[in-house]
Amino acid sequence: MDEPIEATLPGPFGTCPMPRADADRVLLGHGGGGRATADLIGRLFVPAFGNEVLAALEDQATVRLPGGDGVPAPRIAISTDAFVVRPLFFPGGDIGRLAVHGTINDLVVGGAEPLYLAAAFILEEGLALDDLGRIVASMRDSCAEAGVILVAGDTKVVDRGKGDGVYITTTGVGLAPEGRSLSIRDARPGDRILVSGTIGDHGIAIMSVREGIEFETALESDTAPLGGLVRAMLGACPGIRAMRDPTRGGVSAALNELAAASRVGVTLLEGSIPVRPEVRGACEMLGLDPLDVANEGKLLAVSPPEDADALLAAMRSHPLGRDAAIIGRVVAEHPGMVTLRSVVGGERIVSMLSGEQLPRIC
Amino acid sequence: MDEPIEATLPGPFGTCPMPRADADRVLLGHGGGGRATADLIGRLFVPAFGNEVLAALEDQATVRLPGGDGVPAPRIAISTDAFVVRPLFFPGGDIGRLAVHGTINDLVVGGAEPLYLAAAFILEEGLALDDLGRIVASMRDSCAEAGVILVAGDTKVVDRGKGDGVYITTTGVGLAPEGRSLSIRDARPGDRILVSGTIGDHGIAIMSVREGIEFETALESDTAPLGGLVRAMLGACPGIRAMRDPTRGGVSAALNELAAASRVGVTLLEGSIPVRPEVRGACEMLGLDPLDVANEGKLLAVSPPEDADALLAAMRSHPLGRDAAIIGRVVAEHPGMVTLRSVVGGERIVSMLSGEQLPRIC
Repeated sequence: MDEPIEATLPGPFGTCPMPRADADRVLLGHGGGGRATADLIGRLFVPAFGNEVLAALEDQATVRLPGGDGVPAPRIAISTDAFVVRPLFFPGGDIGRLAVHGTINDLVVGGAEPLYLAAAFILEEGLALDDLGRIVASMRDSCAEAGVILVAGDTKVVDRGKGDGVYITTTGVGLAPEGRSLSIRDARPGDRILVSGTIGDHGIAIMSVREGIEFETALESDTAPLGGLVRAMLGACPGIRAMRDPTRGGVSAALNELAAASRVGVTLLEGSIPVRPEVRGACEMLGLDPLDVANEGKLLAVSPPEDADALLAAMRSHPLGRDAAIIGRVVAEHPGMVTLRSVVGGERIVSMLSGEQLPRIC
Repeated sequence: MDEPIEATLPGPFGTCPMPRADADRVLLGHGGGGRATADLIGRLFVPAFGNEVLAALEDQATVRLPGGDGVPAPRIAISTDAFVVRPLFFPGGDIGRLAVHGTINDLVVGGAEPLYLAAAFILEEGLALDDLGRIVASMRDSCAEAGVILVAGDTKVVDRGKGDGVYITTTGVGLAPEGRSLSIRDARPGDRILVSGTIGDHGIAIMSVREGIEFETALESDTAPLGGLVRAMLGACPGIRAMRDPTRGGVSAALNELAAASRVGVTLLEGSIPVRPEVRGACEMLGLDPLDVANEGKLLAVSPPEDADALLAAMRSHPLGRDAAIIGRVVAEHPGMVTLRSVVGGERIVSMLSGEQLPRIC
């Protein structure tokens, strides 16, 4: 526990360990959302674009508009994500739903109210227009459900063999209410870590399609818009320190980033983490840790200890938080590190995924 | 000239003729920025996302933030574009410069002041990190030059053969000053059409690399940020009705969209349109019309007749407008149609490109 912690720099591309120079080409692992992704960012993006706005960022950028005539201008939040999930249609969703939810969720976990969405499509020559139509209809429904308006778009076409059906980049713009501050830099020893439901559903749903795994019960992606849940949570507990949606890289990446950014340790209690039996089974079969598997409709929250029970109750009252649980706590020991206390009493380090678990999960 | 005009609907994806049902798969021509692109949009995107914000849109969406406490909230402008240009590096620029300029220019031609940029990268496994580094450095320089801050980003990796090096989607957010209205719906008979310089440079520069054409003098892409030029123009002539950057689809697509949106005709004078001799020569060789060829650092402006000379002088005083010219006028006749009066006196219809001239020009 006294090992030196790798220097890290949180930013909009994720937490960035110090550059390594052991590869000169892009590898699939660079897209995994774990250490290799962070490495790529640290080598290329942070040195190029580092600026004071960037350095303060989470999954979304919060910036103030220029004011005029002494009137304070509002703060807006911006988030962008490219979606390259394969297959395009999967149990519980499709790339269109994911593209709307993913970007909106990055805004809401920062406390912003999503308002507008822009969508850019990269279509591969030969894509069936019926498939595109289904995806677009799905985006329309997801926007309506989340209360955002799609106001800008673009369509490009690439030659056959230079894409994979369709890639979608969505960018969300929202309002960041005055005085609301949620930051992964703000976790303090004693805080509780909560999760809004079972983990790993999205990743295992995608893997089950790709690997041909069948379950006795239907396992679906958890992709969902988290705005309503977050509003309920902030209503019950305005003192929430931070939230994160543990997508690519899973709970382990999200909590490692939190631990690094806040310079605290995190200790999880294995027995308290909700995992569906079929997800647990698939993970055992595939040699995966559910903590590393992607989620698309779950969030992690950090709460002061005195508010944790009220927050948990508020989460459980919401349909998307029915299985919420307190899964661990923030500790002063081992800053920058996440540990897991197992059911039988052992303790192990939960590190960020070092390569690619499953390419193109989102 | 009395042919019925096709019903059109301007929107953020371009002008949209009525749906045709003659293809069930995405074709390269759907990405050309002309009729086929508009057709795809008309069939799929407009029916799905049609809303009052969308229906009012140009190349950028202008929306008002929700106000509070009786204070009017500012208007912001949002624009998004995916960049899939091939090759990644070309004379005069690269995909990174293009991705910054293209999105910023869509904001400034709507009268907005670009502030923030988000960038999402789709990397192909195997891309040389050195190439990515050059592209990112180029984006950094372009952002600095244009005075915008890159505040949000994302990186995804797709397997080899499912991309083409790198695709970049940029989304720009800017402030839309109160009282400033520039709309392609506002052209009126008698207005003059101005262009800021020689047309077709970007498209021919890309084609020359792809087709192996050599010129005696170096022909470079005109990719450039147009914010400074637009500020100079609005300072000299606040009454400008509309501006457009004639990128994919060229001048012909931009003016056809203007004619349709404003329900006016446009008549161009061929002899007044600035075209470099090498671009003219390459177009003759390739069987292209310079009016159809893409530009990335040029704009078209529509000005009341009494302001046209002052506007032209302001444009010519700016480095990016040195070759500006008045190239035609808005007429009441043939609404929705663009015509060209040739040097020898004939007149022909300038229609929007119907298919794909050159895939992946931007």
